[in-house]
Amino acid sequence: MPSRRPERRNEESAKAIVRAALDLCREVGYDKLGIEGIAARAGVGKNTIYRWWPSKSAILLDGLLSAMTSAQSDFPDTGDVVADFKTQIVAACETLTRPDTAPHYAALIGAAQQDAELANAMWERLLSHLVAAAVDRIRHAQRQGQIRSDLDPDLIVELLYGPIYYGWLIRHSPPGREHIHTTVDTVFAGVAASSAEARSGNG
Amino acid sequence: MPSRRPERRNEESAKAIVRAALDLCREVGYDKLGIEGIAARAGVGKNTIYRWWPSKSAILLDGLLSAMTSAQSDFPDTGDVVADFKTQIVAACETLTRPDTAPHYAALIGAAQQDAELANAMWERLLSHLVAAAVDRIRHAQRQGQIRSDLDPDLIVELLYGPIYYGWLIRHSPPGREHIHTTVDTVFAGVAASSAEARSGNG
Repeated sequence: MPSRRPERRNEESAKAIVRAALDLCREVGYDKLGIEGIAARAGVGKNTIYRWWPSKSAILLDGLLSAMTSAQSDFPDTGDVVADFKTQIVAACETLTRPDTAPHYAALIGAAQQDAELANAMWERLLSHLVAAAVDRIRHAQRQGQIRSDLDPDLIVELLYGPIYYGWLIRHSPPGREHIHTTVDTVFAGVAASSAEARSGNG
Repeated sequence: MPSRRPERRNEESAKAIVRAALDLCREVGYDKLGIEGIAARAGVGKNTIYRWWPSKSAILLDGLLSAMTSAQSDFPDTGDVVADFKTQIVAACETLTRPDTAPHYAALIGAAQQDAELANAMWERLLSHLVAAAVDRIRHAQRQGQIRSDLDPDLIVELLYGPIYYGWLIRHSPPGREHIHTTVDTVFAGVAASSAEARSGNG
């Protein structure tokens, strides 16, 4: 369990509660998910849940974190930055397509639009270290002369991951492997007929 | 009112209902917004609302559409595709920053993650014609040799708008003018040190 809560707790009960929350969320939807239902499904009292988690979204976030694999959070460094981002993004995107993670992650992103505390928790526990690892990989490629050194690495993270999230959340089309590869290639290659031309002329 | 409902209705009441929904949503948040509260605020009966709209999200979507200006939906064509996308995206992004539209749009995107009917309505009424206009502008630039003709225009739409939505929905940072300009420049110029190099070698 990747939970960082300091309280000692019965790990078997904690796992049962997270499992119950994930299963119930899939069955009834995030809106109708309640602590009472989770407690009943997990065979524990509501107070047990409230002792360890402040809200249903916190339980689901634990579930999402425990479902992520190291391939989804680690950045390969083979020396070929384009290939490395293809590998990482394809692995990370499993979270957006797997039935045991995709609906929960979409629900949490949706709920975070109305809940600043949840938005902060998702950033702190789920996203900030992934973004930091991507930025590190980009900086390394900049030092090696593979990526223009005048660009902010954080902007490049937005360019690489933004189209994937946009396709998923706004267009409701889960990212496929080939589409990810084309996206990464196009970000790295540029869409202008000649990037030198675009930089000096049309830009 | 851009509503496309066929029923004849009292436009003054309809406007009051939409206004009440927008105001209340801002005051109490999307989750706590209810048809009863909207009816009370607008001084109409609940049945009047249900005759014209199936849900609170449908009312908010009408409000969002009526708040959008033609600068946000029209695509300029000055001959300079990079400048035109900067102009359009800066105008469109007002929806993501104005206090009378940003929270409602974020709430609707959030709710659409759990509501396929709402997701379809947002696509049909709000997004599909904006995307079609962007695709037309890109095709025109491709015919003029300003954009590589081997790229799918829809992919370029994702590359241009995806980073903006990702920054807004996932990183919770509303897009500023300068950041939009850099994003558009970078998409058009490419992030690799040399795009020809990236295409033949590193990609």
